[in-house]
Amino acid sequence: MKRILSLFTLCLCLICEAFAVVVPSSQKTRLNEGWEFIRQDMGSVWEVMRPVRAGQPEIVPLWTPVTLPHCFNAEDAVDPDVNYYEGAGWYRTYLDLDNPYPDGRILLEFEGAGQRSEVYVYTTKVGSHIGGYDGWKVDITDAVKAFKQTGVYNSRFKGKIPVAVRCDNLRDVETIPSDMSDFNLYGGLYRYVNLVYTPAVSFERVKITPQTDQKGKKGSLDVAVSFYNPQNVTHERTISVTVKDPNGKIVIEKVQKLGCDADLAHGEALLNSGNADVKRCKMNCDVNVTLISTEIKNIFLWDVDNPQLYTCEVTLEVDGQTIQATDRFGFRHFEFIEKGPFMLNGRRVLLRGTHRHEDHAGLSAALTEELMIKEMKMIKDMGANFIRLGHYQQSDIALRLCDELGILAWEEIPWCRGGLGGEQYKTQARRMLTNMIEQHYNHPSIVLWGMGNENDWPGDFESFDKDAIRAFMKELHDLSHKLDDSRLTAIRRCEFCKDIIDVYSPSIWAGWYSRAFKDYREMSDKGFEGATRFFHAEWGGDSHARRHMEGDFATVSNAAKTGDWSESYIVRLFDWHLKEQETMPNLTGSAFWTFKDFSTPLRPENPVPYVNQKGVVERDLTPKESYYVFQSYWAKEPMVHIYGHTWPVRWGEKGEKKEVLVYSNCPEVELFVNGVSQGKKKRNSPDFPAAGLHWDVVYEEGVNTLRAVGIDKKLRIADEIAQEYQTEKWGKESQIVLSHTPLDNDTVLIQAEIRDAAGVRCLDSQAYVEFSLVGNGKLIQNQGTSIGSRKLQAYNGRAYIKAVKNGKITVCAHILSETGIGASEFITIFASE
Amino acid sequence: MKRILSLFTLCLCLICEAFAVVVPSSQKTRLNEGWEFIRQDMGSVWEVMRPVRAGQPEIVPLWTPVTLPHCFNAEDAVDPDVNYYEGAGWYRTYLDLDNPYPDGRILLEFEGAGQRSEVYVYTTKVGSHIGGYDGWKVDITDAVKAFKQTGVYNSRFKGKIPVAVRCDNLRDVETIPSDMSDFNLYGGLYRYVNLVYTPAVSFERVKITPQTDQKGKKGSLDVAVSFYNPQNVTHERTISVTVKDPNGKIVIEKVQKLGCDADLAHGEALLNSGNADVKRCKMNCDVNVTLISTEIKNIFLWDVDNPQLYTCEVTLEVDGQTIQATDRFGFRHFEFIEKGPFMLNGRRVLLRGTHRHEDHAGLSAALTEELMIKEMKMIKDMGANFIRLGHYQQSDIALRLCDELGILAWEEIPWCRGGLGGEQYKTQARRMLTNMIEQHYNHPSIVLWGMGNENDWPGDFESFDKDAIRAFMKELHDLSHKLDDSRLTAIRRCEFCKDIIDVYSPSIWAGWYSRAFKDYREMSDKGFEGATRFFHAEWGGDSHARRHMEGDFATVSNAAKTGDWSESYIVRLFDWHLKEQETMPNLTGSAFWTFKDFSTPLRPENPVPYVNQKGVVERDLTPKESYYVFQSYWAKEPMVHIYGHTWPVRWGEKGEKKEVLVYSNCPEVELFVNGVSQGKKKRNSPDFPAAGLHWDVVYEEGVNTLRAVGIDKKLRIADEIAQEYQTEKWGKESQIVLSHTPLDNDTVLIQAEIRDAAGVRCLDSQAYVEFSLVGNGKLIQNQGTSIGSRKLQAYNGRAYIKAVKNGKITVCAHILSETGIGASEFITIFASE
Repeated sequence: MKRILSLFTLCLCLICEAFAVVVPSSQKTRLNEGWEFIRQDMGSVWEVMRPVRAGQPEIVPLWTPVTLPHCFNAEDAVDPDVNYYEGAGWYRTYLDLDNPYPDGRILLEFEGAGQRSEVYVYTTKVGSHIGGYDGWKVDITDAVKAFKQTGVYNSRFKGKIPVAVRCDNLRDVETIPSDMSDFNLYGGLYRYVNLVYTPAVSFERVKITPQTDQKGKKGSLDVAVSFYNPQNVTHERTISVTVKDPNGKIVIEKVQKLGCDADLAHGEALLNSGNADVKRCKMNCDVNVTLISTEIKNIFLWDVDNPQLYTCEVTLEVDGQTIQATDRFGFRHFEFIEKGPFMLNGRRVLLRGTHRHEDHAGLSAALTEELMIKEMKMIKDMGANFIRLGHYQQSDIALRLCDELGILAWEEIPWCRGGLGGEQYKTQARRMLTNMIEQHYNHPSIVLWGMGNENDWPGDFESFDKDAIRAFMKELHDLSHKLDDSRLTAIRRCEFCKDIIDVYSPSIWAGWYSRAFKDYREMSDKGFEGATRFFHAEWGGDSHARRHMEGDFATVSNAAKTGDWSESYIVRLFDWHLKEQETMPNLTGSAFWTFKDFSTPLRPENPVPYVNQKGVVERDLTPKESYYVFQSYWAKEPMVHIYGHTWPVRWGEKGEKKEVLVYSNCPEVELFVNGVSQGKKKRNSPDFPAAGLHWDVVYEEGVNTLRAVGIDKKLRIADEIAQEYQTEKWGKESQIVLSHTPLDNDTVLIQAEIRDAAGVRCLDSQAYVEFSLVGNGKLIQNQGTSIGSRKLQAYNGRAYIKAVKNGKITVCAHILSETGIGASEFITIFASE
Repeated sequence: MKRILSLFTLCLCLICEAFAVVVPSSQKTRLNEGWEFIRQDMGSVWEVMRPVRAGQPEIVPLWTPVTLPHCFNAEDAVDPDVNYYEGAGWYRTYLDLDNPYPDGRILLEFEGAGQRSEVYVYTTKVGSHIGGYDGWKVDITDAVKAFKQTGVYNSRFKGKIPVAVRCDNLRDVETIPSDMSDFNLYGGLYRYVNLVYTPAVSFERVKITPQTDQKGKKGSLDVAVSFYNPQNVTHERTISVTVKDPNGKIVIEKVQKLGCDADLAHGEALLNSGNADVKRCKMNCDVNVTLISTEIKNIFLWDVDNPQLYTCEVTLEVDGQTIQATDRFGFRHFEFIEKGPFMLNGRRVLLRGTHRHEDHAGLSAALTEELMIKEMKMIKDMGANFIRLGHYQQSDIALRLCDELGILAWEEIPWCRGGLGGEQYKTQARRMLTNMIEQHYNHPSIVLWGMGNENDWPGDFESFDKDAIRAFMKELHDLSHKLDDSRLTAIRRCEFCKDIIDVYSPSIWAGWYSRAFKDYREMSDKGFEGATRFFHAEWGGDSHARRHMEGDFATVSNAAKTGDWSESYIVRLFDWHLKEQETMPNLTGSAFWTFKDFSTPLRPENPVPYVNQKGVVERDLTPKESYYVFQSYWAKEPMVHIYGHTWPVRWGEKGEKKEVLVYSNCPEVELFVNGVSQGKKKRNSPDFPAAGLHWDVVYEEGVNTLRAVGIDKKLRIADEIAQEYQTEKWGKESQIVLSHTPLDNDTVLIQAEIRDAAGVRCLDSQAYVEFSLVGNGKLIQNQGTSIGSRKLQAYNGRAYIKAVKNGKITVCAHILSETGIGASEFITIFASE
């Protein structure tokens, strides 16, 4: 039934997409349903395709039904007990094809697949690709035609076309990215796969080059196309271009005819700039043919606060068959002034940036469009206006969202760590840079093309040659400018290459990998001095969501090694940096590392194993406290947030004054404890912490209610939390106590609390806790989150996990010590609970 | 400490082995300890070898300490929920080398590794091998020498030599065996790896060819050697040969000198037959040099009942350095008479055979020598005198045990199923046949070289060419006779090749894959008629250990599909065949499939998932009831065994007569029920079942005691069991009840009993049961046995699993139905129980 529905959808799409699609494409449909997958290599493509008789050897190995996008490593990337799978996997499906274009082409479009792929129609190999992040297409027209001549087409496959894709993410030092990278090299069809029908002649690329002065008074627009014409059709082409302004008003409309001449030398193209004239170009036009090259005035500017987008529709008609490509673009003027600051459309904009990996709880790289929309909106709501898409070309959807939301972008190729490989390695890097620029050229959000990251880090090869790395960096820099001179190049952390590229970020991790966060200004100034155009990419530190500690942390240095990885520390680190950055007039901007916790193979011993916990939201987008610190500095929408929403119990002496922090962008905040006002405070950034919104408060034993009211002129907004206060001291961890809370009919939240021999809660315990379950249900685990890992460090004497129960379940929790399993407890939950 | 000990052991071995070793070898030690393993491919050998700094990316992926022999698939081969791993894995170790021979050679000897291997000294590749079953050696001398010149040898490796081995069992239709085979293609160093020191010149092979007439009156002995001399040493060689008879008496002693002459053409060898003379041969003597070629009289014969072995010691001395090779051999005369029977040393011997895979619970292919000794002794104790080592060359240890125990052998290469591949495929098959014959030539037990199995089975390739298969079969047959004309060739099941080889077995599975077991004689006669020399390999059927059913099963046909897979059925099937075979005067013999249950990727839905349950012992060598059926026909040691040792509860009407079977080789047996004699019966094979030892008995409700006394002249032997009798009828399966029995301090046996709504045991239930455990302990699972699988079919309303408890544990059991999880129950066992 699903297949039938998707066919129906396909037909609708054929009509719809010509009008609705905003990415440069033609008739296409996402092939999400009806796939089977196997996570291993097969002995040959025949093994993938051969008929299976029940009970015979061909039934194995067993395949699993899946939907796309799909990642090999959806679970194992953050399984605490295994290395994530790096190997081959196969996908297969059966396509119902019905190309509306006589003599048209059928393409499979892969928006990105990890990390190497091969595509087969039945047993015929029709294409392959190396590289896990750039998009690519395979033309299956001829193979489909040949397959239709075989006997099995109708007899066994009933008129469907069997298609298989082999992906692998095998370790290989001769491909990028390096396995020394601090992220997983995922495997699978983890971005959308599209079925595309085109006429015999269609567009290969629509290249839109808008230019403007700082104020949008005048500029220019160039639109060029290249064609996809594998059958060498020489018939006359009619091309119409319509450009609409952000209000939908047509500002340019132009129809022209283009003849083809096989006699012209390859690469030549003679074009008209007038309307409806016919000129000649080489028939198989893989060159750019300029359709529009015109001056333009009174421009609607694209800006981070008002990202106004134009639309360009290009329609091609050959022999009565029509195909349309639509894309959006924007006019904006930017400048990285030498020694700063950054200027956008003639005014200084402080780049308030973050980073993004394509990684999510339960999915790893296989993000849906809906999820990307949610994530990018949260980034914008935090107040960011900049993002570094580290460390590879990301989904075109992410860039479209940057365009729509007003987020400037640094996008880069995954040449990171390990050194420099041989010719195959370099060829891949060049190709990925070329593809990234050509595929994402039209996005107004992009201002920087990144060449690499941490290229000073050796390890993948026995030798490490700085001169060779410099030479290759220069080659990439030149290639980038050749392909797109409208953007600058950038890298982070490779001091011996910083003179080669345009914008440089040194490595500054004040308070995390070196020194204390209060040393930030000094460290930053030094980085600033050493670079022609300085940008500060990557700062911050790990925080174990839900871990909160008492203290002021002012003297902590090298916290990665010596710290407690608490949210309490990290909010102060972020706070200090943000406060300082406000006072740096020549700072182009910064991008903290990173928006969302993400999986990494390098960190098996982290509080959540295999998770880089530097995010301000968890791997499932649940905000940590630090998300609100950023909002309090960056966001315009009024907000107020009391620190400690996930800190149910504070501790200290009876009558001791405890610091309460409120993060808010309101000019004034009043705090109430148990209904009693603790006074109003004015927001004042230099008054660290929390920009002056800090109170010393005496808690009562037991439960206390905290309420903060943000005051912005007449506006009043409030936030409220309840916190218990414990004065009882605890001894050695010796018990674990389980309890549970129903979340809905099927789901319960299990809490494990570590206590001493007398039953007192050990509120600072960071012991590892391990959960397991038997019965008719399952743990919601391998999520890489604070409540989605069966093995994790207690936040502070407490750990949670969710479980699905379809019947009776028993959950067990242990304390894990170096010598093995410590205290254990069991809880049985009945189906009716 | 372990490394130091093993070094010490090594020194002892250097002294000991020259005297004690019985395999043709030189100074060697098993490298069992001090290995690390990772089950994935690495990006390069540098990734395997590079230094690791704590907390840096090089720490991952994580390696695991292992001992050899080691198999990738020790657990997952029979994990009910996954396809077994077919991919790459790496091993690494650090060797302390100290070659006692100046200018000698250092070799790594692999007794077999799956399925493709590469060997590295540090980052230098020193050898590779394709094929998972033949032995091979790598000379690491030069690479070690080169490595010692590097800086890291002392600075980082402290004088040790880093060695890595990459193995893979990746699916590949162009290598044998085929993945369509009914066994796993295991990965890993699953046979012993030996470190071997030799002088500059040593033996490549010692070839011993004993011949005799039928009575051992006269025969001949030829001993030839070939040399391993990679440095082309031309100095004079002194070779001594000592041959001892089975009583240790020296029967031949001979010393000769051999000079080397580089001028002689390759392959030429001029030899003396006298004593202490010097002749000349080409210096790099890879030809066989005959040392002894003599007539011999009054031979001690090797026979299945009295396997008398001679010993041959060959000592080589060059430049004062000595190395000795020792091997055993036997004189026996055999004949497969056309149209039968089989003759050994002039008398008819009915070949009573079984089969063997190298596979064991918890280890998969990684069998230790101790385990092989136990297994082969059990085969002999069952009464077998023949074994087909299906379907590949097995460990030399297994052949040595055949020699010692008196078990004739058919050994074969793994060309089975799938079709015929290209040149790489054929090259591998030829090489594996050559290696098998050359490596196992000296074993007197071997009488047949097998070329293949089920070569009529298509599937690995889109086309299937019978003529090409015939041509290749002929080529292998000719190659076998060229390498060893003293044995015959054989295959099983490929009708269109049966004229090519010497001994043929058709496929006859009476009562299992076709017809009823009572049709055996008719089916066998037909097979006999169609073959020049007929042998019946592979018969029997699956039985789920501990499953017993009421009934007489006489009318069951095609039991694989229609039967209940009970032990009750299979003992009758075996019984019938054995009874019939006694009356077939021209039968050479048969080999039932198979001695031991073994893992197979092809049978995920079996009662024990992924286990071929055709064994008469379980995968951990626990005998099923059928083991005793064979003993009752074949063994000489008196035995008596009441059917039903693992059948605690029988059922039926009150007062109904139930058949009790006793398997015994005693002439007479008396049965007692609850102390009351049921009469004596004489053993009489034609009186099916149990050769007349069957009684109809009325059970009392509740527990009954059965006692059988075997009577053989004055000898009395007894067997006793207790069986409950249930007359209560049961309804639909609706409950599962758990109980447990302590086995020792750490281990408990968990029993799950399926009951109806009223609590009556459902004694014929075959529902799938799934166990799981939480707490401080673990299930003993993935064993592929009736009490070692977390998912299995109830035997008859009952299932067991063992668990280790280091503290409190909770075990859960479900009934699994097609719609998911059915009835569940939990049992909590405390540490002190």
